[in-house]
Amino acid sequence: MDRPLVAVVLAGGVGSRLYPASRRHRPKQLLALGGEGTLLERTVARADFADEVVVSTRPAFADAVREAVPEASVLVEPAGKDTGPALAYATHRIAERFDDPVVLALPSDHHVEGEFEPTAQRGARVAARTGSLVTFGVDPDRPDTGYGYVEPGPDRGAYAEVAAFHEKPDAETARRYVEAGYYWNAGIFAWTPAAFREAAGAADAPLSPLIDALDRGDPEAGFAAVDPVSVDYAVFERATDVAVVPLDIAWDDLGSWDALRRILPADGDGTVVAGDASVRAVDATNNVVAGDDVHVSLVGVDDLAVVAYDDRILVVPTAAAQRVRELVAELDAEGEF
Amino acid sequence: MDRPLVAVVLAGGVGSRLYPASRRHRPKQLLALGGEGTLLERTVARADFADEVVVSTRPAFADAVREAVPEASVLVEPAGKDTGPALAYATHRIAERFDDPVVLALPSDHHVEGEFEPTAQRGARVAARTGSLVTFGVDPDRPDTGYGYVEPGPDRGAYAEVAAFHEKPDAETARRYVEAGYYWNAGIFAWTPAAFREAAGAADAPLSPLIDALDRGDPEAGFAAVDPVSVDYAVFERATDVAVVPLDIAWDDLGSWDALRRILPADGDGTVVAGDASVRAVDATNNVVAGDDVHVSLVGVDDLAVVAYDDRILVVPTAAAQRVRELVAELDAEGEF
Repeated sequence: MDRPLVAVVLAGGVGSRLYPASRRHRPKQLLALGGEGTLLERTVARADFADEVVVSTRPAFADAVREAVPEASVLVEPAGKDTGPALAYATHRIAERFDDPVVLALPSDHHVEGEFEPTAQRGARVAARTGSLVTFGVDPDRPDTGYGYVEPGPDRGAYAEVAAFHEKPDAETARRYVEAGYYWNAGIFAWTPAAFREAAGAADAPLSPLIDALDRGDPEAGFAAVDPVSVDYAVFERATDVAVVPLDIAWDDLGSWDALRRILPADGDGTVVAGDASVRAVDATNNVVAGDDVHVSLVGVDDLAVVAYDDRILVVPTAAAQRVRELVAELDAEGEF
Repeated sequence: MDRPLVAVVLAGGVGSRLYPASRRHRPKQLLALGGEGTLLERTVARADFADEVVVSTRPAFADAVREAVPEASVLVEPAGKDTGPALAYATHRIAERFDDPVVLALPSDHHVEGEFEPTAQRGARVAARTGSLVTFGVDPDRPDTGYGYVEPGPDRGAYAEVAAFHEKPDAETARRYVEAGYYWNAGIFAWTPAAFREAAGAADAPLSPLIDALDRGDPEAGFAAVDPVSVDYAVFERATDVAVVPLDIAWDDLGSWDALRRILPADGDGTVVAGDASVRAVDATNNVVAGDDVHVSLVGVDDLAVVAYDDRILVVPTAAAQRVRELVAELDAEGEF
């Protein structure tokens, strides 16, 4: 592709369900869970085929991001308002700096294994050639109820048209989606600034006040004028011309502690260990332990996550790992997150 | 009583079921669980009516004991061989130093609330007057299967003769014992050196080689000649003349983490907290948390003990708290206790 390809890595979130590893001052993308180097470092390295990698983050994380990935340029969002405003701002700034670029957007806090570049390049070419908004779809290996799904429409060879996006389903619906060949929506996208602008700036779209303000050169006012909103809701679900490119990699959003079971090997007791924790299990099976420099003994317990970072300890059944959200909401309300 | 009363506080054990609060270098009696000051400090204070308080301990704990209770004299056992040899040695040394003493022996690692002195004095008088070995019996408030029981025989006013000692029973047997008016064997005793010597030194008794060696002035050889053995087995269960004096106090051996539930108040979630831990429970009930300067979050878990000291964390159902023994045996075998 002769147009410049600019990767935008989104690193403004916190990932609260991985508390207490993730905290307000130490977001999920700065953790080294499930591999060598932090998730952010691995994401930036994964995008190194792009002509430039831009990391978009909130002011509080900017220094940590600069330190973690000095090879990337850092774009500081005027305010943390979810992925919609962040990507509108990044796309606008990239269009100013590059000549006719294609934008590749990717989350910084997912676990990915396999060859990313070929499919990413293909998606970028589809975005450039067709003017479609492109989403990358992961082939599901289970009827996960924690992800959104992409329903493919007519197959166009390098891509399929998107027939519809579907929110996180219940178990029965998820099974149906998997059987029907739907994809997981991995949160990885490609577009041209023109295509993005057209969809995001439509008169009734949530981001249109921001798009207008960016045109006027007043991003602060633009961020003030919009509510936090995901790019999925604010742009993709409203766009008429969306393509899906299958992404043939092992992918996990590492959203909560039970996910470690999927990406790390278990020992004979079914124990999965992340970080520098050492574990002794006495009649204890299928537990997840995470922590640094900690020695955890489990006696007669099953299917628990035991997590220890700093002076914080969390114990939760892996089946209830999503409920850490409720905990963090309480902690956050009291300034303890 | 005009004979000198010398209290022997036994502080040579480790209390491994309270791991990781208790460790090889920090035995249970040096912990402050369930009250102000360490269990040892509280025990020595409880015995302050005695003419002298002697703390018997193993060499490794001697310095810590001297520091913790400078008001007591410290007797260092030649070797840690359980309560039988320790009390034979202490009784011998006390008989050398005091004129016709009565010995009051008490564990250093139990939780006691209430007036101890009047009953202790009564037991000492019974020991002096009758020449019996005296054990103190706690009136059970539940059919606990973790304690030994004392079956009282004929009532003699200030005491009852002991009909029999019973090992830790099963649940049905424990219920029968409680209904029949048996006592818990609290491990608190009184005797004269002569009475102790006669029972412990009988020709076929486990401690007789040690008693002989003490007479010869060679305690090291005496300790080498005997196996670890409890005073209950080596002396009391063999003696023909044993009395029980009811001890009307709240007593708990604080043997394992579930015991905290009995001696500490619970919050609205049924959470019991020992030490300086702070706890947040989200849909989590009846848990026991212990630790210093640690912040523990419990989400969707019930009836667990979560314990954190140093870099060690333990998670065990309170109902399985006795099984920490198995864990510690493993850790100990690998030098990690």
